[in-house]
Amino acid sequence: MNADILKERSGASFDVEKLTNILDDGTEKTKRRREIESLVFSDEDFKEQDPNFLSRSERYDQAVRKSAQMILKIRDYGISDPEEIYYYKRCVHPDRPEPLDLHLGMFLPTLLNQATPEQMDLFFMPAWNLHIIGTYAQTEMGHGTHLRGLETTATYDPSTQEFVLNSPTVTSIKWWPGGLGKTSNHAIVLAQLYTLGKCHGLHAFVVPIRDMNTHEPLPGILVGDIGPKFGFHEVDNGYLRLDNVRIPRDNMLMKYAKVEPNGTYVKPPSAKLTYGTMVFIRSMIVGESARALSKACTIAIRYSAVRHQSEIRPGEPEPQILDYQTQQYKLFPLLAEAYAFLFVGQYMGQTYNRINGDINQGDFSELPELHALSAGLKAFTTWAANSGIEVCRMSCGGHGYSRSSALPDIYVNFTPTCTYEGENTVMMLQTARYLVKSYRQAKEGRQLSGMVSYLNEAETQRVQAQPVSARPTVVDVNDLSSLVEIYKLRAATLIEMAVKSIQQELQHRKSQEDAWNNSSIDLVRASDAHCHYVVVKLFTNKLREVSDTSIHSVLSTLALLYALHGITKNSGDFLLLERNKLVPQMLQISLRIKELLAQLRPNAVALVDAFDINDRKLNSCLGRYDGNVYEHMFEWARRSPLNATEVHESFHKYLKPLRAKL
Amino acid sequence: MNADILKERSGASFDVEKLTNILDDGTEKTKRRREIESLVFSDEDFKEQDPNFLSRSERYDQAVRKSAQMILKIRDYGISDPEEIYYYKRCVHPDRPEPLDLHLGMFLPTLLNQATPEQMDLFFMPAWNLHIIGTYAQTEMGHGTHLRGLETTATYDPSTQEFVLNSPTVTSIKWWPGGLGKTSNHAIVLAQLYTLGKCHGLHAFVVPIRDMNTHEPLPGILVGDIGPKFGFHEVDNGYLRLDNVRIPRDNMLMKYAKVEPNGTYVKPPSAKLTYGTMVFIRSMIVGESARALSKACTIAIRYSAVRHQSEIRPGEPEPQILDYQTQQYKLFPLLAEAYAFLFVGQYMGQTYNRINGDINQGDFSELPELHALSAGLKAFTTWAANSGIEVCRMSCGGHGYSRSSALPDIYVNFTPTCTYEGENTVMMLQTARYLVKSYRQAKEGRQLSGMVSYLNEAETQRVQAQPVSARPTVVDVNDLSSLVEIYKLRAATLIEMAVKSIQQELQHRKSQEDAWNNSSIDLVRASDAHCHYVVVKLFTNKLREVSDTSIHSVLSTLALLYALHGITKNSGDFLLLERNKLVPQMLQISLRIKELLAQLRPNAVALVDAFDINDRKLNSCLGRYDGNVYEHMFEWARRSPLNATEVHESFHKYLKPLRAKL
Repeated sequence: MNADILKERSGASFDVEKLTNILDDGTEKTKRRREIESLVFSDEDFKEQDPNFLSRSERYDQAVRKSAQMILKIRDYGISDPEEIYYYKRCVHPDRPEPLDLHLGMFLPTLLNQATPEQMDLFFMPAWNLHIIGTYAQTEMGHGTHLRGLETTATYDPSTQEFVLNSPTVTSIKWWPGGLGKTSNHAIVLAQLYTLGKCHGLHAFVVPIRDMNTHEPLPGILVGDIGPKFGFHEVDNGYLRLDNVRIPRDNMLMKYAKVEPNGTYVKPPSAKLTYGTMVFIRSMIVGESARALSKACTIAIRYSAVRHQSEIRPGEPEPQILDYQTQQYKLFPLLAEAYAFLFVGQYMGQTYNRINGDINQGDFSELPELHALSAGLKAFTTWAANSGIEVCRMSCGGHGYSRSSALPDIYVNFTPTCTYEGENTVMMLQTARYLVKSYRQAKEGRQLSGMVSYLNEAETQRVQAQPVSARPTVVDVNDLSSLVEIYKLRAATLIEMAVKSIQQELQHRKSQEDAWNNSSIDLVRASDAHCHYVVVKLFTNKLREVSDTSIHSVLSTLALLYALHGITKNSGDFLLLERNKLVPQMLQISLRIKELLAQLRPNAVALVDAFDINDRKLNSCLGRYDGNVYEHMFEWARRSPLNATEVHESFHKYLKPLRAKL
Repeated sequence: MNADILKERSGASFDVEKLTNILDDGTEKTKRRREIESLVFSDEDFKEQDPNFLSRSERYDQAVRKSAQMILKIRDYGISDPEEIYYYKRCVHPDRPEPLDLHLGMFLPTLLNQATPEQMDLFFMPAWNLHIIGTYAQTEMGHGTHLRGLETTATYDPSTQEFVLNSPTVTSIKWWPGGLGKTSNHAIVLAQLYTLGKCHGLHAFVVPIRDMNTHEPLPGILVGDIGPKFGFHEVDNGYLRLDNVRIPRDNMLMKYAKVEPNGTYVKPPSAKLTYGTMVFIRSMIVGESARALSKACTIAIRYSAVRHQSEIRPGEPEPQILDYQTQQYKLFPLLAEAYAFLFVGQYMGQTYNRINGDINQGDFSELPELHALSAGLKAFTTWAANSGIEVCRMSCGGHGYSRSSALPDIYVNFTPTCTYEGENTVMMLQTARYLVKSYRQAKEGRQLSGMVSYLNEAETQRVQAQPVSARPTVVDVNDLSSLVEIYKLRAATLIEMAVKSIQQELQHRKSQEDAWNNSSIDLVRASDAHCHYVVVKLFTNKLREVSDTSIHSVLSTLALLYALHGITKNSGDFLLLERNKLVPQMLQISLRIKELLAQLRPNAVALVDAFDINDRKLNSCLGRYDGNVYEHMFEWARRSPLNATEVHESFHKYLKPLRAKL
């Protein structure tokens, strides 16, 4: 164990294990999580070569091997709780996406939700047993978030009782689905349904794409890998071009909408049913943001405790870089953010489960708010974590740039969350639509519930405040509930400004749509402020559940840092607030932040230890628990494929002959 | 040619070619640049396989092949102007670093600067003819920016007249030098010189590391590749461990410092001489920031003109995504920034040449300011371009994540500029040191020159302003010179705040060093504001040189957008300014920014066309000049190595056998 890191641990003011239990949501869950980790990490079948040393084809091959093993073992062990399966998978492929992700996460669930009992017999059991391997083919080369724009067609032919599927243009080629390129023999294809000469919009079709025995593509099918990406190297994201591909009528998923044998279309009873899945996935992504940022913070903070560099006082030994105020200022607000997002993730999970219960009882009343919240928080947390990971990487100096740090991999595998499952700007605008609607309802005197209820409150405040606006409200910068109030006021103000922008555009005779587009900068800003308020509020709320005093104390410091740092980073917004003259307090806040950094310094390593990320999952020479960074970097480098021979063949091919010519 | 992009070009309000000439610094230079491009791109010897489809070893191999060809051809063609050689190289390896970079850019120049005439005979000519291939081995595993911390030792042995080189610890292993791993047979090693029992600090030694004939490592040398990185895949960044390696006395570079045969150490006449190279490289990096950001903007803006998505008005065709205000708000400020940085890059180049002339005349007076400016602007522009590239990538939706977009490669090859040649935070603190010193000099009544002269001015303003501080100055948000003033005032205010922070720390009985560390957040912020002011000012100055009215008009719009956007993004700073009550103007600025976005919209594609980045250099399916994005993405994907066979072997190895077991 590295001496510096030992010293850090001995200086912590709280019991790390207890904090881990809080993050895991209970002692039992910590225990079970570690059991699963040890099941996977002690299993010889899951030993792997460092993917950084492999070609893409070898990486894909290794991942398929492990996925096949994983399927067998999960069933052997009888692991059936979805959360546990998910965690097992995340250990087998340490936080890396893998070729069967869409089969397990989209193909099977879609069948469960949308297949008739007959279709379940036909498709589900073979898919459960991996005879059918499927993917979910929605996005096209020219079409992403906007589903109505999809061009693939499925035209019903009553004479043969078949659907004929086509990709009519280059832009209609299915593009991006994971596992589509090489792994799957079936795809659920989203296509515009045409029957009896009429288009009925998007429906889902089960389309065989490869021969069940030879795995060769079927006639009419052009399928392949879309080529290397920033990350996701293990996944064969694919393309699919359909040329008059005929499938039986039974292959349209008909639990809700139907096409009768004669071609008559029968509408689905409700459109709300697919809504839930989206909300669920986006809520999950909030947790992903927290985990990715936790990993990056773990690596950067542990390394900053081990790394010595430069000097603060001349003649003294080089200090740990964690002693530099600028380094603390880079990392501790991110550490606070990681904690904030972990708690927001817990809240989203609990809320989803609660509301999902209601939905199963037929009560959809809370769904719109959850939909708006999950969209906004997905965008808010992924953007923040995305840039935060890079700050962590760059805070490790040159070594962060080496693949041995694991930071490049964390980034490239995380960054797509800003784009998939709803592009972030589009998500922010969806949340804004809900906020504007809620604002107008509040204006009309309607009582709002949930996270937007402050719009009632702020309204009231605003009306009363007018006459005394000259008397500034002094905010107690050490009191979290005062800070929650001021975040609330900022959100309310920015929502109001966005609504006013729309109104002004309308007054300039713009159409409703143009008014919206011309106000979209303000709308995104308002959503961002709303989400920020939600995060500060949920972090503050979480503190009430923490009874251990020393943990309560350190978490309060983190929450305060998170809230104050957010104010300085958006100080323009806060300074604009009518009733809160923060100007004289800004300097105070800056000073307070410096104090909080100094206060957190002795607990920094313990706070990342509490994330309890197994070294095998972290896979980082810089972030190792034992702090023995340099020895392992050296050992790792020596295994680099370029070191397989002392002399690279290019010397004999090019460099030696060159001498003769000069 | 894609119809959308054709329409964009026909709608431009200015002559693209004339703007290109301004960016190239003259019509002749544009012509010569294109001659070099055509020389390289028509050359069959430089044809390459897309590196994205190759393994790391193949990438390295291809790069060495092309570098060897390049050396021959540059000499054949008689290209001798350093700028032209550099540009030729950037076409051969389209904006990718390559294995001979350090041989050409560091090894040869260091010999030129620091070798005696005898050493030139011994090393330079063999190196010029690629018998000796060298690198520059400075950084160690445990030591980066702080040079005094380096641990490698070179101990003189008078009995044999040799230096004995050692890596005494793991952390002292030389780490990172490009070309060290496999390519070089020599290295200039920076080591602590010991002679006659005394340490004389860092000196440079020419150390043979591989056999000139077999290329095998020499005795006592452990050398190899440090393994895969985020980018720089063509470069064999290496490690070097020295174990009692003996080199002749002649192998210490002795133009300045010397060790006599008997071991007597002779000091160098001046320490300022190595200063210039650092300044030069950092000034160059400002241009790199501009070019990398220009490429990313070219790709994102062209693609946004071709890409149609979603709807603004229901029922109408999907609009070009460039019509969304949020998309404009992401990209146009970055476009303005790219232009700003190009002009700053030009200024830095000119200033360096001017001051270098002075230095050669023995006049070092302007060097400290240029040193401070190049450090700060290196950090300011690389940080901004670094995050800007990622904004561009994410603005392209999912396709930006594909390697076919080229955006991932631009990012991973650019991002090390934030770390190398002086870590950015350290750079900002160096600039801050100069600013604090200048501030104190101004306080003492000394007249400052150059970019910091406003510290005299601000002083004056401040003193006079006190009695009328209640009367707010109204800033004309449409007038660039007013905006330059307010950026100036912000910088002066933040410098003053940082100085006050140091003073307060000192009053709390902190040492000078702790006071500095405890104020470093403020110091970085002050440097950032100073650099921001310099960029706004230089952009504004540049406009005076532009005589063409339509180009002057569009560049003014860009400059105004750059300045106003900077104010909104840092509005907290500006709102804190004592004498400028900007609060009521903030809303006006937001509205003005929206107008500027709309104003730039018709010229956006033409403005990136003016960068005139050859398609072969851009190497992006999304950013192609002809806008035929989708056809080329599809064609590119089909060449993916995973598509070499229809059925991947993993199907037969793992997936088919799995079925039998389930």
